[in-house]
Amino acid sequence: MSLTSPTVSSFDARVPAYLQRLERAMDALLPSAGTDPARLHEAMRYACEGGKHLRALMVYACGETLGMAAEKLDAAACAVELIHAYSLVHDDMPGMDNDDLRRGRPTVHKAYDVATAILVGDALQTLAFEALAKNNALDAEQKVQMITALAHASGSLGMVGGQAVDMASENLTLTLAQLESLHARKTGALILVTCQLAGIAAHASDAVRHTLDRYGKCIGLAFQIQDDVLDQIADTATLGKTAGKDLAQHKSTFPSLLGLEQAQHRANALFDEARDAARSISSDAEPLAWLADFIQQRNH
Amino acid sequence: MSLTSPTVSSFDARVPAYLQRLERAMDALLPSAGTDPARLHEAMRYACEGGKHLRALMVYACGETLGMAAEKLDAAACAVELIHAYSLVHDDMPGMDNDDLRRGRPTVHKAYDVATAILVGDALQTLAFEALAKNNALDAEQKVQMITALAHASGSLGMVGGQAVDMASENLTLTLAQLESLHARKTGALILVTCQLAGIAAHASDAVRHTLDRYGKCIGLAFQIQDDVLDQIADTATLGKTAGKDLAQHKSTFPSLLGLEQAQHRANALFDEARDAARSISSDAEPLAWLADFIQQRNH
Repeated sequence: MSLTSPTVSSFDARVPAYLQRLERAMDALLPSAGTDPARLHEAMRYACEGGKHLRALMVYACGETLGMAAEKLDAAACAVELIHAYSLVHDDMPGMDNDDLRRGRPTVHKAYDVATAILVGDALQTLAFEALAKNNALDAEQKVQMITALAHASGSLGMVGGQAVDMASENLTLTLAQLESLHARKTGALILVTCQLAGIAAHASDAVRHTLDRYGKCIGLAFQIQDDVLDQIADTATLGKTAGKDLAQHKSTFPSLLGLEQAQHRANALFDEARDAARSISSDAEPLAWLADFIQQRNH
Repeated sequence: MSLTSPTVSSFDARVPAYLQRLERAMDALLPSAGTDPARLHEAMRYACEGGKHLRALMVYACGETLGMAAEKLDAAACAVELIHAYSLVHDDMPGMDNDDLRRGRPTVHKAYDVATAILVGDALQTLAFEALAKNNALDAEQKVQMITALAHASGSLGMVGGQAVDMASENLTLTLAQLESLHARKTGALILVTCQLAGIAAHASDAVRHTLDRYGKCIGLAFQIQDDVLDQIADTATLGKTAGKDLAQHKSTFPSLLGLEQAQHRANALFDEARDAARSISSDAEPLAWLADFIQQRNH
């Protein structure tokens, strides 16, 4: 028996394995590209390719911190990625953001057509709920709780509602409170729900869920502030999507309201608060601290 | 004690009460029109107004035949109506069928705008799954089974897949088998699932579920043949949507492949088969027979 504890490796070392799990689980969920109707299924797979899979990594990082085996987290990781992918396909369409580029490639309505983009988004959303309902690693009560949480986060009081407010806010100058409320729904709700899904998988206590919520809210808002900053300072090639869009669309952003330096300062303070919340969940919340660092350091 | 059985009234007499239940349940599910974002929620309600609610009535008729209390059917009735409403909003959009008229009123993208129509459809789909997950009259296992069935029926292997095949089939002459396969997905799957949801609510035996499936498949196909016939012979004012579209879009239809008279004959034979299936479920399957008659006699 060794007197020294085994060295606990960083979450960083396990990220490739988690991403591989995610890829396999997504591959099993999505009908093969040859399945009739083949063009629709090919386009659904196209829409899910690429990206950093931050939301799935949030599920795995929260779950690992709570001591969960990865197989109880796979369905939730897939479900949030499917909701995120569907929202990007629809948001990029003409009549919405009308964007040609996503993850460094043509958007779905450019690579295919508008009808296919509508249907791809619709079918990916359906598949997100099916993924949770069909997963054998969870009990029925957990599935129902996860579906309820994901629906609330992504529906008209969450992500879709935030997108509606965002569209209506073009050419308006929002207050900081209005901008934070918009983004709490548009991007924050889906990031927050990653923590909640892991909490459900782990049967976590109310106290732990409460602190996980604080972590998720800080990460969600910090992520969006950083997104606004990157939209302003990074180039299109680095971002993999059109840079400078916020300015072109006369949108209120954190840099436009706070100035670039203060916006960066606010994001950093939120990342610090997220790390603080992580430490109060567990002395071994290294996955959550790692993820805060990882997101803070991203340049696209 | 009376020696005569109480007269069992026809399902017809109970339809208004079922429709009132549906309306109340939908009203409770949909955020009020004043809830932020108000325009989105107003448009979601607009999209759910009108219509014959045939799919909800299918749920109630199947459930009543299986002896179910209506409160165990409300969530399923709402869920199929929400999926149906979302599919109409998206199908009517530019890039899809590009239609201006639905249920006798401007389509959502005409009454509001394209972005709102995309988001309304997305949020109504989410709400369908949330309705099933949140309902207190069902146990968790039933909810999961219903969500799985509804997702399968409405996703890329069901309704959305059928819509994709339909879009790809414009200007092509399909075989009768191809046309039936297309409609089994595009309209048939959601009609069939109404029977399956009632079967889940009632914990029905496999044999009963199998016969309910036969009823649902016959009604679904007969409904679509009749839809094609009505598109050809009815006028826009009666239909509440643009008449003569199939011909204008060079679509294969049952009348174009079979001739008008043979198409009507085929629909009638399917309605007869549905009534036959209903009788073999129960000697008191009057709600199912009533519904077959009601759909057969519709003129819009």
